[in-house]
Amino acid sequence: MSETPDSAVRTYIDSHRAAFLDDLAEWLRIPSVSAQPERAGDVRRSADWLAAKLQETGFPTAEVWPTAGAPAVFAEWPSDDPQAPTVLVYGHHDVQPAAREDGWHSDPFEPVIRDGRLYARGAADDKGQVFFHTLGVRAHLAATGRTAPAVHLKLLIEGEEESGSPNFRTLVEQHADRLAADAVIVSDTGMWSADTPTVCTGMRGLAECEITLYGPEQDIHSGSFGGAVPNPATAAAGLVAALHDEHARVAIPGFYDGVVDLTDRERELFAELPFDEERWLRTARSTATFGEAGHSTLERIWARPTAEVNGIGGGYQGPGSKTIIPSSAMVKLSFRLVAGQDPDHIEKVVRAWAADALPAGIRHEITFGSATRPCLTPLDHPALQSVVRAMGRAFQQPVRFTREGGSGPAADLQEVLGVPVLFLGISIPSDGWHAPNEKVELDLLLKGVETAAYLWDDLGENRHDAD
Amino acid sequence: MSETPDSAVRTYIDSHRAAFLDDLAEWLRIPSVSAQPERAGDVRRSADWLAAKLQETGFPTAEVWPTAGAPAVFAEWPSDDPQAPTVLVYGHHDVQPAAREDGWHSDPFEPVIRDGRLYARGAADDKGQVFFHTLGVRAHLAATGRTAPAVHLKLLIEGEEESGSPNFRTLVEQHADRLAADAVIVSDTGMWSADTPTVCTGMRGLAECEITLYGPEQDIHSGSFGGAVPNPATAAAGLVAALHDEHARVAIPGFYDGVVDLTDRERELFAELPFDEERWLRTARSTATFGEAGHSTLERIWARPTAEVNGIGGGYQGPGSKTIIPSSAMVKLSFRLVAGQDPDHIEKVVRAWAADALPAGIRHEITFGSATRPCLTPLDHPALQSVVRAMGRAFQQPVRFTREGGSGPAADLQEVLGVPVLFLGISIPSDGWHAPNEKVELDLLLKGVETAAYLWDDLGENRHDAD
Ligand SMILES: [Zn+2]
Ligand SMILES: [Zn+2]
Repeated sequence: MSETPDSAVRTYIDSHRAAFLDDLAEWLRIPSVSAQPERAGDVRRSADWLAAKLQETGFPTAEVWPTAGAPAVFAEWPSDDPQAPTVLVYGHHDVQPAAREDGWHSDPFEPVIRDGRLYARGAADDKGQVFFHTLGVRAHLAATGRTAPAVHLKLLIEGEEESGSPNFRTLVEQHADRLAADAVIVSDTGMWSADTPTVCTGMRGLAECEITLYGPEQDIHSGSFGGAVPNPATAAAGLVAALHDEHARVAIPGFYDGVVDLTDRERELFAELPFDEERWLRTARSTATFGEAGHSTLERIWARPTAEVNGIGGGYQGPGSKTIIPSSAMVKLSFRLVAGQDPDHIEKVVRAWAADALPAGIRHEITFGSATRPCLTPLDHPALQSVVRAMGRAFQQPVRFTREGGSGPAADLQEVLGVPVLFLGISIPSDGWHAPNEKVELDLLLKGVETAAYLWDDLGENRHDAD
Repeated sequence: MSETPDSAVRTYIDSHRAAFLDDLAEWLRIPSVSAQPERAGDVRRSADWLAAKLQETGFPTAEVWPTAGAPAVFAEWPSDDPQAPTVLVYGHHDVQPAAREDGWHSDPFEPVIRDGRLYARGAADDKGQVFFHTLGVRAHLAATGRTAPAVHLKLLIEGEEESGSPNFRTLVEQHADRLAADAVIVSDTGMWSADTPTVCTGMRGLAECEITLYGPEQDIHSGSFGGAVPNPATAAAGLVAALHDEHARVAIPGFYDGVVDLTDRERELFAELPFDEERWLRTARSTATFGEAGHSTLERIWARPTAEVNGIGGGYQGPGSKTIIPSSAMVKLSFRLVAGQDPDHIEKVVRAWAADALPAGIRHEITFGSATRPCLTPLDHPALQSVVRAMGRAFQQPVRFTREGGSGPAADLQEVLGVPVLFLGISIPSDGWHAPNEKVELDLLLKGVETAAYLWDDLGENRHDAD
């Protein structure tokens, strides 16, 4: 246990909470949607805003790093102790698309606090969880009387995470020297629930593709031609239907090559969590579970690879009817990957499968976005134990282990920098990531601040260098 | 052979051709799209325009008949001979949706003539084919010196054919007295090709439905939840994929109940037509045929029932990607029906099939539009022989037999009025019905005028009363 007076941390946070929330709201008002080309200026504005704010926080260095796409923000605050370990915090300042008409109760880019929750696109994913580090490091300094953090602290906040981080690996390779660290802390995940603080030990990877199917050169009359030529909408549906077998396993040949199955110990840890399937279903806004045979819901979302349809479209979708055979149709697919799966291999097997599955007379084009590798941290890693201790002090509860079903470019940091990746996140499943009415619980956000305040001290004093 | 001097008909048509085309162009400029609620005023304007034009043509009676939806036009021109048979011409003045950005080379509602073709939405389906009757009856009178047609001539031109004629049957029942006739002539079909004039002997029926599938109450994150709850886009694709078996037969239990199979004689007549599959594929703008095993392409499009996807949609369809499980998806399906199939039965079996096919956790809604029954006329009917003779005189060629794969409310007229239904159409498959760049060949349009001019004489003199 560190000597940091926890009450001093809490007092500092309480007295700076209002300004912290005002600042966060200002940032959330910038609609930094990386997937929408017309928002490119807003994504740049978000990076500029963050760099300025980090300087104001006290980081001696805070820079906007351009990429071939949207810019990232890098900041650095060295420790006074040259022997202190170096920690790199990862997050992202871009957000998912959001529009009022998708079902938001208020403007997604005009933050509002209702019932102790802050509603806005990016409140939890990921601006809120990036931003708790600003007050966290100040609380750490104030409570310990330091003028610099107990670790060499670096932040890398990218701007294209919600677009699959197409330029992130290049950026990390390009700046590998300045990014060098002993450990990476990813603040872009969640925890089990408001009552059960947890540390995540791994993330699924992600591969995405869009397949466009072409039939007749133009829409043709379904009376004159129906029943005698292939219909690309039917072919699109056939592809999607062929994604899974009758056990809801992905039916693409070679898809499971190399998959690292769960150990018995991991299955036990998952099974020990207070999982209430009815409650989980409410969070999922769904009425039934469905998935790969032989696995629990937690195993399915954390440790099993998936194939999911994110969008499908073709033919006439307006009011009324239009008796056509459409000229084209498209499907957007995403594949969640687990340890042992290689995105390049997935692209290869998906391409082969799609080419095989389509009837004569249907031409197709398939494009893959950039992929994200899966990653996994050993349960017994000493730096992971620091995170668990810091979180335990903030939450005053035992901390358990989860994994994250979502995906992040953490594996690129692990690969390029050659360091372990740890996760510190306070978001909960009901926060509505990528959905309307995304929010963050204010209590938990402030526990995130507190955890960060303790973490630098614990890591600095315990000198958990990377192995 | 009638005594009508054919050359007098041709001379009359030649000298009135320019004014006829100007008038038609004026009508085509009215965007009478019945499927789009915002065009309701245009559909009414189209009806008013036609009624006025029919009065100008000489019809003593020309009325706009309101319905619960879009209005129809009724016109009547009695013969001087009370013993003359009564003929009711059917067509429609509404058109399919059309937008420049769908691939039109010019505005769909600004008719242009290029290379002997008149391009506009409705040029062939069906305004052009309704309109040839106006000049046809005038040519008939001019060439025979009559002041009234040789038959009691009635026209019923409806305004909701492209929306499935939801109010047509009610309209016909309501006005059954005034619509009473000895035969119906449907001018809303096509013929084999510009070189091979044909008479159609039947049309397929049509049933349409839209199925909306609901999964999560809102879009949810495919990382957090992917692999563990049912995805409505996957379910939609599964439904569509389950429409057909591996022989491309419709796999809905009960779908083929009652289907009247082709006779050997009918299969021979089909097989005798100069069918060039490569050329047909070019017309279909397709690169391969595909359909029910054991049947030729002509059998598939004319005499076999089908299930076709007209539209499918769900999830994110914009640029880039969005890693969601969508909250809903929809499919628009249409079923072409052949003699012996009952739309009410089809609705019943489709509803049962959809309810059975969907996984737990996917709620669905299914709505059926109004259906159209299939119809078929005996090859040896005497009025059909009149049509064949009139067409033979206009085209100066032998006339062969086809069927029509499309659908029309002709079967309602057959059922309610108790009369045989005949077909007179001059459109050809490349006219692009329901597609961008719809057109009509001017030569054929004028052969339609000429056929109509001969037909009233032949029917009037030969007194082919309905049996
Ligand atoms: Zn994120
Ligand atoms: Zn039509």
